[in-house]
Amino acid sequence: MASQTSAPAEPAPMPSPEAKTTEGASSYDQADMETKHAGSPCPPKQKSWLARHFSLLLRRDRQAQKAGQLFSGLLALNVVFLGGAFICSMIFNKVSVTLGDVWILLAALKVLSLLWLLYYTVGTTRKPHAVLYRDPHAGPIWVRGSLVLFGSCTVCLNIFRMGYDVSHIHCKSEVELIFPAIEIVFMIIQTWVLWRHCKDCVQVQTNFTRCGLMLTLATNLLMWVLAVTNDSMHREIEAELDALMEKFSVLQCRTCLRCCLFLPYLLSGNGTNTCMCLNTTVCEVFRKGYLMLYPFSTEYCLICCAVLFVMWKNVSRSLAAHTGAHPNRSPFRLHGTIFGPLLGLLALVAGVCVFVLFQIEASGPDIARQYFTLYYAFYVAVLPTMSLACLAGTAIHGLEERELDTLKNPTRSLDVVLLMGAALGQMGIAYFSIVAIVATQPHELLNQLILAYSLLLILQHITQNLFIIEGLHRRPLWEPAVSGVMEKQDVELPRRGSLRELGQDLRRASRAYIHSFSHLNWKRRMLKEISLFLILCNITLWMMPAFGIHPEFENGLEKDFYGYRTWFTIVNFGLPLGVFYRMHSVGGLVEVYLGA
Amino acid sequence: MASQTSAPAEPAPMPSPEAKTTEGASSYDQADMETKHAGSPCPPKQKSWLARHFSLLLRRDRQAQKAGQLFSGLLALNVVFLGGAFICSMIFNKVSVTLGDVWILLAALKVLSLLWLLYYTVGTTRKPHAVLYRDPHAGPIWVRGSLVLFGSCTVCLNIFRMGYDVSHIHCKSEVELIFPAIEIVFMIIQTWVLWRHCKDCVQVQTNFTRCGLMLTLATNLLMWVLAVTNDSMHREIEAELDALMEKFSVLQCRTCLRCCLFLPYLLSGNGTNTCMCLNTTVCEVFRKGYLMLYPFSTEYCLICCAVLFVMWKNVSRSLAAHTGAHPNRSPFRLHGTIFGPLLGLLALVAGVCVFVLFQIEASGPDIARQYFTLYYAFYVAVLPTMSLACLAGTAIHGLEERELDTLKNPTRSLDVVLLMGAALGQMGIAYFSIVAIVATQPHELLNQLILAYSLLLILQHITQNLFIIEGLHRRPLWEPAVSGVMEKQDVELPRRGSLRELGQDLRRASRAYIHSFSHLNWKRRMLKEISLFLILCNITLWMMPAFGIHPEFENGLEKDFYGYRTWFTIVNFGLPLGVFYRMHSVGGLVEVYLGA
Repeated sequence: MASQTSAPAEPAPMPSPEAKTTEGASSYDQADMETKHAGSPCPPKQKSWLARHFSLLLRRDRQAQKAGQLFSGLLALNVVFLGGAFICSMIFNKVSVTLGDVWILLAALKVLSLLWLLYYTVGTTRKPHAVLYRDPHAGPIWVRGSLVLFGSCTVCLNIFRMGYDVSHIHCKSEVELIFPAIEIVFMIIQTWVLWRHCKDCVQVQTNFTRCGLMLTLATNLLMWVLAVTNDSMHREIEAELDALMEKFSVLQCRTCLRCCLFLPYLLSGNGTNTCMCLNTTVCEVFRKGYLMLYPFSTEYCLICCAVLFVMWKNVSRSLAAHTGAHPNRSPFRLHGTIFGPLLGLLALVAGVCVFVLFQIEASGPDIARQYFTLYYAFYVAVLPTMSLACLAGTAIHGLEERELDTLKNPTRSLDVVLLMGAALGQMGIAYFSIVAIVATQPHELLNQLILAYSLLLILQHITQNLFIIEGLHRRPLWEPAVSGVMEKQDVELPRRGSLRELGQDLRRASRAYIHSFSHLNWKRRMLKEISLFLILCNITLWMMPAFGIHPEFENGLEKDFYGYRTWFTIVNFGLPLGVFYRMHSVGGLVEVYLGA
Repeated sequence: MASQTSAPAEPAPMPSPEAKTTEGASSYDQADMETKHAGSPCPPKQKSWLARHFSLLLRRDRQAQKAGQLFSGLLALNVVFLGGAFICSMIFNKVSVTLGDVWILLAALKVLSLLWLLYYTVGTTRKPHAVLYRDPHAGPIWVRGSLVLFGSCTVCLNIFRMGYDVSHIHCKSEVELIFPAIEIVFMIIQTWVLWRHCKDCVQVQTNFTRCGLMLTLATNLLMWVLAVTNDSMHREIEAELDALMEKFSVLQCRTCLRCCLFLPYLLSGNGTNTCMCLNTTVCEVFRKGYLMLYPFSTEYCLICCAVLFVMWKNVSRSLAAHTGAHPNRSPFRLHGTIFGPLLGLLALVAGVCVFVLFQIEASGPDIARQYFTLYYAFYVAVLPTMSLACLAGTAIHGLEERELDTLKNPTRSLDVVLLMGAALGQMGIAYFSIVAIVATQPHELLNQLILAYSLLLILQHITQNLFIIEGLHRRPLWEPAVSGVMEKQDVELPRRGSLRELGQDLRRASRAYIHSFSHLNWKRRMLKEISLFLILCNITLWMMPAFGIHPEFENGLEKDFYGYRTWFTIVNFGLPLGVFYRMHSVGGLVEVYLGA
């Protein structure tokens, strides 16, 4: 996902005259410098002087970097707090602070961020020395791809919202149209800038860049918080649907006398507040599009935050020349695995069938109960299989004689933290479901299925995290052959004298032979089968919530238990994290597959 | 506050026969081992075999440690999620999940933690090799002291609660008395165990110990969440006070006819639900004690969590011999500083006066407006002074020619994170106040004072954090003289040839002379003055919320704006963090003072 600075060097914001003369040089690593000067014809005295000078510069740079990070972090913190207090006020005191106030604050932040993004692009394009290095680990293709995918979805969402507002224009103010318009411009430009610049290690105006990045990050975070907590649009749509139902019952009134008993109450209660649509068919399209695309916008904000954070960490970072290229990895090959891909494809096909059935049937206002049963039954079948596969994989990891890679690796640490953090979303939803079901004790099949689904989901997340983390910490076999053998000699223990040592040597040689001819032993083959199966399963489980199936929200059980607003917040907080978790798992599992 | 593992070594949960024979040895550092064997009469072959063997053991230990940490962390996560879902259900759906259910869950967790704590104490006392090392940085005296202080307060709180319940026993069930009783036993034993064992680096049953520690941590965290969100007792007390007021008005009814107009409404509205006290004087004591001690219980849970986390990090850690002793520090001396302590004492005395006035006047049900004005005016006078002092200190840090200490230091990193994290509490409250005041736009003096207070509080937190963090990163002058000089030589730059170098040498020597005779230059003296002033101010600002002044809750402005429950949650979340921040700042400022 990302990478960290190891020994960064940054020109101080206002460098002293001495610093200025060596500004270009100071952005190299100290080690590089010393090697360079070792080969130069400098006398020893001057050499040590230079080394000391660079050491000092390096320290000053690090100090300036720390100060810049602290300052920009505090800026973001204050913006987030201010916005958070605004949004909380909007929720708990609707009279004094309205949604409009929050929109105005966010629009101001968006305009500021937009101006900064444009300035950044122009600035880095015009100055040739602005970006000397590009971080190869930052912004991998799947992150940039999902950025564009979710970005376009969010733009569509805003278009649908504008369409919905226009078709209700007779009872809404025209000023409200400006906010989605600003958001569309902001999204398009932000996506374009992040696509182009997500790998940059900027070397000029570092403090200003850090502040700009943090401002943009804070804006995205606030957009996410608002999207998670603000259900006003959903309520509006529900109110209109309810009013439609009433209208329908008024029309039916002539044929059914009993239906009309409540008519006066209904008309006085809801009819006055609800704003009805002018063109029902177009409205239906806008409404459905809006509801389906809503989770993408929260997802988009989260991904933007992650990318901006990595860019922020990379400001003023300098990379050694050898890290510029990717480490040599084996290409993605099947290695004769059969059962894993087959089982995985089976799950994928079954998942697509459930998905299509669900989506077709979900076109009505109420989804029939049997489709919920089908959906949860699919999960209850797939999740234990995945958990068993993960447990088997973890056991095989334990059996393997491969060495643990316990060296410091900040990229991997961040990956592990993101994996664990993203798992919290679905696990949180599952625990809330469990408490709701256990407390109400319903005896229907569907509710027992939901209970089983929640328990299995928690188990699956735990076992999959264990398997991926164990796998990421194994030293991959495709490391350069020579260094691999040397490492092995250093590490393995020749237990009893030379005979045993000879046997080990032979075994090692044969293993190298087997490896080079791609005939895997059973453990490696099993690991590859398991990884492939899990990759396909995770893609299936990613697809369903990502493209609009949210039975957690639609089945009604938890919504009734916790109330609309609470459950809306919990689901909108947890589901995007869940989708992010599946994406991230696939990335981790591909690593495990290639390393096995 | 705490420290981290650097190169820990732990016996695997089920060690192989080879591992068993060297179990005792494996808990030494690898470096120690190699030094030992370098001096032994082993032949070179055997030596390298031993080295390899230990290297392997070390890696296995690290793997087992990682796995144990992951597993126990997941355990705590699941317990916290389950409890969190319970508490949320209690809040949002009072019918299905009651407060009693949450109490039963927490009581079960407390009993489990209690059993584990007793087992741990007995286990480590009976086995002599259970605790080979004690972390000198863990559990400093101020942490253990506040543990005992807040622990006793929480025990008192529970006694008051039991007393309150007993005096209302005619309308409460007796089963409810069991929960405070369990809590008292749990608090006493937990405080005693943590006091005795907070420095332990346990070497036996490491995985079981980790799980036990995490279970206890999760229990404390859930107790904190419940204390922050559950205002039922407060509501009960308020209802009783309201009912008392009504009774009063009934008695007055004979003299005042107009008062009685609302009597039937009052009696029907509140009289039936409210449980009245049997003995009013005793009840008043219980009620006041409960309300005053309530913030201590949340504080206690937070401190327990921090101590347990450090113990968890220290499980199976082995320390090198030289880290066993404290680093040699200069004793705390005044060094002839005058203005800082004087100004600080002035602030302290003024603070104590405001505190006493406020506490005496707060005995009535409503606090007079002028005391709020006094309180906020005191803050508005002190906070800008502190901010200015911090800014001056930061500027002097910038002017100083002392070197930055940029080496990795996990203890300091944790300190910085805690400082920044704890600052969020008060800053959050301040932002919420600002939004509430700006949105309602009142024109009273008191509200404008609160606005100024909130803005200044944010500024003061930011500047103080900058000052402390800058100060902690300076290399202290009281480091051993020889190594200090060597470091300096390595670092400082002799800019132009030997004449300059000579000058620098002279300056260095004179500085060492000045230092050894404790005549400080103006910068160091200023830093010491500023630190002392800030220490005394922070003690003053710590005392006021810690001993029961909570004008944020009592002034009514934000309570009306956000509603009772929301503001209760925000304040109970933020205030304990604020108190913790002041304590922690004092610790950091003492470090800065000694280092300057």
